[in-house]
This record gives sequence, structure tokens and C-alpha cells, in this order.
Amino acid sequence: MNFADEVCQRVQKVGPLVVGLDPHIEYIPPFLLEQELQDKGKTWEALATAVEKFNRILLDELHGVVELIKIQMAFYEMLGIPGLIALKSTLDYAHRLGYIVIIDGKRNDISSTASAYARGYLSSVSFPGGWLDSYWNADALTINPYLGEDGLLPFIEEANKVNKGIFVLCRTSNTSSPTIQDVAGPEKVFVKVARLVKNLGTVLIGNTGLSSMGIVVGATYSEDIRFLREQFPSLLFLIPGIGAQKGDIESLRYAFRDDGLGAIINVSRGIIFAYRENNNDGLGEGFEKKARDRAVYFQEKFREIIHENSQSY
Amino acid sequence: MNFADEVCQRVQKVGPLVVGLDPHIEYIPPFLLEQELQDKGKTWEALATAVEKFNRILLDELHGVVELIKIQMAFYEMLGIPGLIALKSTLDYAHRLGYIVIIDGKRNDISSTASAYARGYLSSVSFPGGWLDSYWNADALTINPYLGEDGLLPFIEEANKVNKGIFVLCRTSNTSSPTIQDVAGPEKVFVKVARLVKNLGTVLIGNTGLSSMGIVVGATYSEDIRFLREQFPSLLFLIPGIGAQKGDIESLRYAFRDDGLGAIINVSRGIIFAYRENNNDGLGEGFEKKARDRAVYFQEKFREIIHENSQSY
Repeated sequence: MNFADEVCQRVQKVGPLVVGLDPHIEYIPPFLLEQELQDKGKTWEALATAVEKFNRILLDELHGVVELIKIQMAFYEMLGIPGLIALKSTLDYAHRLGYIVIIDGKRNDISSTASAYARGYLSSVSFPGGWLDSYWNADALTINPYLGEDGLLPFIEEANKVNKGIFVLCRTSNTSSPTIQDVAGPEKVFVKVARLVKNLGTVLIGNTGLSSMGIVVGATYSEDIRFLREQFPSLLFLIPGIGAQKGDIESLRYAFRDDGLGAIINVSRGIIFAYRENNNDGLGEGFEKKARDRAVYFQEKFREIIHENSQSY
Repeated sequence: MNFADEVCQRVQKVGPLVVGLDPHIEYIPPFLLEQELQDKGKTWEALATAVEKFNRILLDELHGVVELIKIQMAFYEMLGIPGLIALKSTLDYAHRLGYIVIIDGKRNDISSTASAYARGYLSSVSFPGGWLDSYWNADALTINPYLGEDGLLPFIEEANKVNKGIFVLCRTSNTSSPTIQDVAGPEKVFVKVARLVKNLGTVLIGNTGLSSMGIVVGATYSEDIRFLREQFPSLLFLIPGIGAQKGDIESLRYAFRDDGLGAIINVSRGIIFAYRENNNDGLGEGFEKKARDRAVYFQEKFREIIHENSQSY
């Protein structure tokens, strides 16, 4: 099935929340980390095993509440090969439980090198005398558009072969994203990116009218969300910035189409580290219950916004 | 020692060539790949082992001719965990032989996530109760500026702690790089990026007056090289696009300062796969001699340009 269609089905089932598995090592529940450090010493293996256990407990607990997971590569790459083994194991486990998994790697390069990323993360790798299915086998990958059109095309080509998704950074959620993204010729860079993605992504449009080549738009820029939604109805938005980054939940109102589709909302720390918000928690036991409660809260809140939104039309 | 100073020393010793280890799996000498496929079957381990052997033979052979190596992450990530093990092993081996190693990962993200990349590739990773030196331990990393200033700062902070380098994509060598990079407000995006890097990178300036935070400028845009050299004397250029991408060697004339410093020139396929240019070669045995000859040729050519350039002043 087309990636965007599959995402829409899941959104209709439980809501648009994407839980980000961004395992900041300093926030991992102490009861998990300390045990591993004791067993394995101060090693990459200890850190990576704690991360992997943390992820599995979360994936078990969030099952049924959430259908979409985003994995932030940086935190796994930081832990070297053991970290990447934990990433692969997390990804496979999430797939076994039926989650859709977006790898947030913000990859970018040109021609055959971009194609190597696209084949490695999404489709398949051929070599003289054979081929192998993608090792990482993500359902979608985030990419960075700074290199322009020919940096994007290889990703579309590979995604198209295997019905997978791409999210192109457009308007990022950070404070200084305007430095580059608001430079304006006839139109601002981020609008140009959105237009480019719309045009290139036409081949990936599914039954919902949404393309499997979407864009990343930060919740912290609500006017831009509104503008992009109006201008680009075929783009699926991946929206970070709610929670730790203080993006306004109300600004999400503009992210959805009348039919309630068109956006998925990422929350990472605000869910997976919810246990830290109360100082009474000591070693973090039961962190997964707090994460689940928070995920339920966000799904309800988002569904409410979608509902109000569609009624106002 | 300051990264830029260290690079300049090496350039003065042998020349500005940076050999790119971009192991396109379809171009690996057949005698290496076939042996591994026979021994290990059609597996990631077979592909990764062939890559690692290829790299080691090249590193041994190029020793003394070349001091700077660039490793393109995409080709290793594409081969999964075995590929990343080959990358780590290549990197360590290159260090053992005394090379300076730039990881070309074009990484990018914001705040704590950007910091995770910077710590993972360059400096050190702390966790409750301890810290570990960077697993990957590159000497420099390429990064992408689309997210603006606060996406760059964490890299500077970490590089500064350990005297390492950063190269920010500025004017990339591909055909459609102008799509984004030429959008012009008061100045074009790529010029704005260069200005930003100049300002942010002041803290990393060494004895040569060059900063360890440099920029990537494609050899395919000679007028831009000239302009950037004139405007930004403190920026160290990493220049790809010679060889496979048909960038003009003569355009490099503008890349250097009067003292012959200020730029390092990447050639990847044009050297490591030089053996393929002659159809007589069958299984690719002796590929390393061709690579060495070609590296010697490029170093001579570049030194000649530097020499002519400094005489013309």
C-alpha cells in the first residue's frame, strides 16, 4: 500500500501522534542504566543495552495507543556500533508489533551517494551478481533539501519502488530556522522547498490525495503551518516541536485538512521522559505508564482539534 | 594542534589532495568482491569485508603520497552494521598510518540532537556517572546548514573542545545546487552560509589565519570559488567535484590564498577506481598502483597550480 495511505489509515484508527524514540542517555531511567553499567562497566554496550531495553518497554506499553514511531538516528550513532545494533533491534521489534517506523536521519547528498542512502534505508542494494533488501528497512526517512532537486530525486526513485515515504525538511522548528529558510527571492526558501516537494512528489500520491513525499514543518511556526496547508493540500506534514520545544498545540488546528488528515504530530521527550517531570520518581520505575498516559492525553487532544476543525467547516 | 593548522602542515608536506573512500559496491575490483561472495555468500558481511580490504590496500599504497582522507558515510551505512564495522576499522587503520580523516556525513539537526552528532563523531559522550571518548573519533565532519545558526553551534562547541574540524556545505558541486543555494535576499543563501560560518568559526582560527570551521565549495562553480576566496580569507575550503563530476582543475587556481593554503581538494572515484578506465583490466588486480599513480598526478597538478598562483602575485 502507498505509504501516505497507510499512515492515514493508522491516523484514522488511533490519532496522528508520532512518538519519537530519542533516547537522550542522561534521561534514561536510572534503574535501567545503572544496572547495565554495573553489569557491563562504563562501556558503549552498557549504554546501548539500556537504550534498547528502554525502547522495548515503551513499544510494548504504547501498543494500541500509538501507531507511528520516529527514531532519531543521532542518539544511536552517538553510541557507535552498539548503538546502531540497538537501533536495528528497536526497529525490528517495532515492526514486529506493527508500528510504522520513520527514521529521522536528515540525510542528504547528491546522485549516486544520495541513492546509496535511499537504497540503504528504504529499498534494496544491488551488487555484481545479486541484491539484498534494505538492511535498515525503515518505512520512511527524513531528508534535507539544501542540495536541491538532484539531491531529492534519488530518494523519490527508491521510495517509489517499494511504496515507502520521505519527509523533506521544510520549515524546521528551531529558533534560528529563518536564517536560511526565510531568505526570500520571489518566494522564501522554505516555500520553494515545499513547492519543489509538491511537484516532485506527485508520483507518490495515493488514494487520500496525499503524497508519500511529505515535509517537516515545526509546530513553533503556526502561521507558516497555516500557509503551507492552504497552498499545498497534497503534502503530508510531519510536525515536531510540541512538548519540549513549547510549540503551541492550538497551532496544529491549521495543520489538518477538512477530512482530518494531512498531518502527523511528533512528540518525543514530552512522552518518553514524562516520568522526569515529577521529582518524586527516583529511579524511574514505572516510566512506561507515565509515557502511556501522556500518549493517551496527546492522542485525545489531537483528535479533539481535528474534530473541532472539521466541524468549523 | 588546531585542526586547520594541522591540515596546512600536511598540505605543505605533500599537497592538498583529499582522497575520498567512496566504495561504490559495483566498482570494487571483482577479484576482491568475488572472493568474499564465494566465502560468505550473498551477505552484508561479504560486501563489507570486500570494502574493508579495498580500503586497507588503498591506504597502504597511498601512504606518503596523500595525507588527507575523506570517508563518505552513505556507502557504509548502506551495508548495515557490517558496513559500519568496516567504516570504523578503515578509520582506525587510517589513523594508525597517520592520515587525517574527514567523515563526510552531511549531518544536521538542532540543539541537543545536533550535539549528539557532534559528540558522537568528534568529542566525547557523557552519561550519569561517566564519559567515553567519541566512538567514531573523526578528525572532522561535514555538516549541512539548512537549519541555521542554532544547528551549527553545537558542532562548533564540540569541535572546539578537542581541536577538531567542521566543513559546512556552502556551494555544493551538483547541477541543481542553485535551487536553494542561489535564492537571493540581500545576498544569496550560499553567501549567507559562508558569512555565518566565518562569524561563528572565528573561535577556531589557528596560526595560519584559517578556521577549523571551513566550507564545502564545488569545483564545478569556479566563479563562486573566486568570489568566496576573495570575500572570506579565513575559510578553509573543502572542494569536491574534480574527476567524476568534471569540475575544471583550472578553476582551482582561485581557491588558494597567495601562500598556497586555504583549500583541500577531494577526488574520489577518479583515484580509487582509476583501474576501471582501461578496459583491459579484467578483475582489477593492481588497482592500487593505478590509484597511486593518479594520486601522484593530482598532487603534482595541484602543487603546480599553487606555484603558478603564488608567482602571479
